[in-house]
Amino acid sequence: MQTVIHLISGDEGEQETALAIARNILDDETGSIDDVAVVVQAGAVEAIQTGQESEKQVQALLDDGVSFKACSNTLEMMDLDESDLVTGVETVPEGAVEVTRLQTEGYAYMRP
Amino acid sequence: MQTVIHLISGDEGEQETALAIARNILDDETGSIDDVAVVVQAGAVEAIQTGQESEKQVQALLDDGVSFKACSNTLEMMDLDESDLVTGVETVPEGAVEVTRLQTEGYAYMRP
Amino acid sequence: MQTVIHLISGDEGEQETALAIARNILDDETGSIDDVAVVVQAGAVEAIQTGQESEKQVQALLDDGVSFKACSNTLEMMDLDESDLVTGVETVPEGAVEVTRLQTEGYAYMRP
Repeated sequence: MQTVIHLISGDEGEQETALAIARNILDDETGSIDDVAVVVQAGAVEAIQTGQESEKQVQALLDDGVSFKACSNTLEMMDLDESDLVTGVETVPEGAVEVTRLQTEGYAYMRP
Repeated sequence: MQTVIHLISGDEGEQETALAIARNILDDETGSIDDVAVVVQAGAVEAIQTGQESEKQVQALLDDGVSFKACSNTLEMMDLDESDLVTGVETVPEGAVEVTRLQTEGYAYMRP
Repeated sequence: MQTVIHLISGDEGEQETALAIARNILDDETGSIDDVAVVVQAGAVEAIQTGQESEKQVQALLDDGVSFKACSNTLEMMDLDESDLVTGVETVPEGAVEVTRLQTEGYAYMRP
């Protein structure tokens, strides 16, 4: 099974929940989920910027095979580029299109 | 690909994000999404009422082919009817059933 | 059709909307939805604890065939166990894995 987490909320608590859930899926003993992707856009981009409190957590998830995909439309709007993001975060042209594409490929969706 | 946006939050920022995402999908240069539906219910109905700040944005999305489907259960609860909504917004008996129906037909889902 | 409601928000208004939507789906006259599951985790666990304002509503939904599945990871983190939850609520090892599993089995998803 594969799942995409939509990290879109500007609310810090919701961002923390999303990252905690990504970790819980990795730690799940049934091992039934083969891939976790996190699509990040809108107010949530802060959570994947360097220098944020969440940086270590994001880095550890990346190291453990979770992919992070940041929305380029959001980055442009916030005057950020890939160098402002935790190393290893990829970019996609539009987060919502990526979320759609992944579901069409069979990923489950969740928005913590 | 087809996608349904669930516009359900009473939070204005989340409503703005949802409408901005619908626009970004339309503007996406890959053109890979053929249909965008927005199902509106609960605290989000305000965003599709006439006289709101979002009216022009909703009208423009409708003009560009996005369908808006308002939940009749919510309208009844809020003592509103179709005439209170931006022209072109459709109604469905229950938003959650419509969201389920669209996913069953192959639409991806997102809840900004 | 089958649908899973992700009850994950710590916001009381969002919790109320989720429970109201479960009820509206049951009451839907088209009867097109055969099964409603509610997966509960993170800040939303309060909504399915005994002694909460929502207890009667949760009990009535359970009586009417809605299944509630609480995330054991969340319960452990909050130092709660099954006896703290409304009678009839089941537990699952990790809510996010259950949400993924249900979607993979064909359930639609919504996060009110």
